[in-house]
Amino acid sequence: MIPDEGLRVAVIGGGAGGMATASRIKRLKPEWVVDVFERTNYVSHAPCGIPFYLSGLVESIDDLCAYDVNYFRERRGVNVHVNSEVIEIRDGELDVYEKGERKTYEWDRLVFATGSRGKGLDIGCESLEGVVCLGNIDEAPAVKETAGRYDRIVVVGSGYIGVEIADALSREKKITVIEQGNHPLPSYDPEIAEVLMRFMSRKVNLRINEHVVEIEGKDRVEKVITDRGEYEADLVIVAVGVMPNVELAREFGIKTGKTGAIKVNEFLETSREGVYAVGDCAETRNIITGKPDWIPLAAPANKMGYVAGSNIAGNEMVFPGALRCQLTSFYDMEIGKAGLSEREALKAGFDAVSVTITSRSRASYIPGGGNITVKMVADSESRRVLGIQAIGAGVAKRIYASAALLYKEACVEDFFFTDFPFYPPKSPVWDPLVIAARNMFRKLDIS
Amino acid sequence: MIPDEGLRVAVIGGGAGGMATASRIKRLKPEWVVDVFERTNYVSHAPCGIPFYLSGLVESIDDLCAYDVNYFRERRGVNVHVNSEVIEIRDGELDVYEKGERKTYEWDRLVFATGSRGKGLDIGCESLEGVVCLGNIDEAPAVKETAGRYDRIVVVGSGYIGVEIADALSREKKITVIEQGNHPLPSYDPEIAEVLMRFMSRKVNLRINEHVVEIEGKDRVEKVITDRGEYEADLVIVAVGVMPNVELAREFGIKTGKTGAIKVNEFLETSREGVYAVGDCAETRNIITGKPDWIPLAAPANKMGYVAGSNIAGNEMVFPGALRCQLTSFYDMEIGKAGLSEREALKAGFDAVSVTITSRSRASYIPGGGNITVKMVADSESRRVLGIQAIGAGVAKRIYASAALLYKEACVEDFFFTDFPFYPPKSPVWDPLVIAARNMFRKLDIS
Repeated sequence: MIPDEGLRVAVIGGGAGGMATASRIKRLKPEWVVDVFERTNYVSHAPCGIPFYLSGLVESIDDLCAYDVNYFRERRGVNVHVNSEVIEIRDGELDVYEKGERKTYEWDRLVFATGSRGKGLDIGCESLEGVVCLGNIDEAPAVKETAGRYDRIVVVGSGYIGVEIADALSREKKITVIEQGNHPLPSYDPEIAEVLMRFMSRKVNLRINEHVVEIEGKDRVEKVITDRGEYEADLVIVAVGVMPNVELAREFGIKTGKTGAIKVNEFLETSREGVYAVGDCAETRNIITGKPDWIPLAAPANKMGYVAGSNIAGNEMVFPGALRCQLTSFYDMEIGKAGLSEREALKAGFDAVSVTITSRSRASYIPGGGNITVKMVADSESRRVLGIQAIGAGVAKRIYASAALLYKEACVEDFFFTDFPFYPPKSPVWDPLVIAARNMFRKLDIS
Repeated sequence: MIPDEGLRVAVIGGGAGGMATASRIKRLKPEWVVDVFERTNYVSHAPCGIPFYLSGLVESIDDLCAYDVNYFRERRGVNVHVNSEVIEIRDGELDVYEKGERKTYEWDRLVFATGSRGKGLDIGCESLEGVVCLGNIDEAPAVKETAGRYDRIVVVGSGYIGVEIADALSREKKITVIEQGNHPLPSYDPEIAEVLMRFMSRKVNLRINEHVVEIEGKDRVEKVITDRGEYEADLVIVAVGVMPNVELAREFGIKTGKTGAIKVNEFLETSREGVYAVGDCAETRNIITGKPDWIPLAAPANKMGYVAGSNIAGNEMVFPGALRCQLTSFYDMEIGKAGLSEREALKAGFDAVSVTITSRSRASYIPGGGNITVKMVADSESRRVLGIQAIGAGVAKRIYASAALLYKEACVEDFFFTDFPFYPPKSPVWDPLVIAARNMFRKLDIS
């Protein structure tokens, strides 16, 4: 039963997912009370923007917040509590450490939007000055200042964040990047990642197959020691992946899934009725495998907020899941992926086959256009396309189209027959995705 | 019955569709004899590239041909006959005027790939020197030479070709563009076309709602007279649309459809068994309406060639149709469309509704990123999206994604939930397509 005056909703975390949930509820139920408790001083912040702040492209850290606190308070009517850490949750109420005071708030519906944090190296050195784990927007100004002052910078890890930080800082500094796998971007297959690796090695000191075993220093960091070498360092940025913030939820008895993130159903409700989870702290459905997965990215987080907010406000809506669709770049080389790599597809039990092609990104007669390499992974039995990876020029539009086709569970024929536009300065008459599909025809003996 | 030595296939026209058909047959049936008869001296030519040749971006007219005659002869084993005009077709044979001689060739299968040509103004002036109808690649060098020598250039028509020619020539010359409709790009709705119109008016003398009534001149063109004014002219480029080349097919008794182009079934076979038609001279299925349509564009032409070639060689394949998907630009403003405009949707009998939104093409904190305006047209009953038009920055990737979703008969919810990648320098966390879908939710009262 919902009382006349409406419900009271508490949202823990003021990032993308939390603010989207709060905004959606207030739009549908303006009379309800929605409290958002955010540990930092920022809401609606975008940690994905940190590399562009470090590179100087974005001048102020405040710019990385899509909207400020007052916008949500005044324009959307959300009670935003910044510098407020939720410390205990009980049925119907929670305790918050808010600006130095312990306070209690009531709730009828609860939303976990506690996000994720950077994983450490687990070698007991993260407290050393000059070693940072760049997950939080509030640490970014100090890192930028340190990076500007010193010359010897080591980045540990070469996932998206590692690659983007290397890009941002290597324009003016000599950067060393240490990766424990065979190539940068471990979630990609070698056919694509090795194209990046060759180019990246010209801009940074890229060390693959190396494990960091120790980080040394007296007053502050001095040296990174790996199983294969030593690197002097004034600043070490650790970017070896993220983990979901689920401690508070677990303490309240909320179940987490195999991935370690909070288990939710298709309405984004957790194991406890009336309690929801969105964004980086929650699991979602992987659209390709159909199974629960952990996909901590900003775009699905926002949509999860929209869906959870709709459901809390009584407008039933199913969240269909995500594709782990990503786009990045290193200098002018674009890199993107939608769906599964071949390795991931095989691991998920598909009878995966692949083709990799390199072709022109635009009409061959337009000078200056670069090449693009596309890898298509498909299930040999159903012919369903499981994933697309691409690197080179003009990657964004192919990943956009791939996201759309994968979302619609498209098969190889769909990639061939989709009527992509031909416009000489942007795209050739046989699009690289179409060429990849045509080659897959041969592999699968279609036509 | 196919004899041991294989069949003899005659292809009339060596453009995109014809060469794709010939290549496909030779790949599947290397022992067959495939003759291609091309009226001009060029094969595999791309008239869509002419504006980029006029602008100087493409240096040589030969570059506009994806492959040259020798490539097809030597590498693909196709008997290419250039400067060869087919003048009469009979059952099993055809007469060709080849390099001044009349010759007869036999055929078992016949393919019409006769393309399209520019429509004239029908005011009896096309023969005046300095008036050109820019449809054929072999006229382009003379036009370029004339454009370089004179200053007063009038372009009649502002469809894609008109806009692209105005873009190419207005960098160095004062161009007048005369359009009889309300705005440039008549196949677009005003919400999008008027954005172009405002910008285009700053670069060219754009005259809308004007009909050309006469073109005057003694030795050569001097003046264009419309119902509202007179324009002195040294060069007049007529770009008022194209028409299919179907005369030869009609003489042979092949049926044309309501659109005026050659009627084909889903295997691209004409009204006569064993006779096929591909590319600009043929009809195709419009994927949105499901009805026959005429979509004279290079990308579908190539795929039609692939499909017709497969069918002729005995590998049955259905051509699913096309979306009339297009992309163009004027200076740095990109413009694109997939599917139907609102006007076209209403005309086709849909209960069409639309939303138009303007948002940032990339993350708001990245400086310099432009706006994009997106119009979404949907069927209010089925919620199926019928078309997307866009103008501004970052249009290509949204049109690519729209082509993919429209091809898969996507509804508004699919546009919302497709997991587009968020990458701050390229795309915002709420993609413009997602924002348009969200606004359409409200309009259609979804959730």
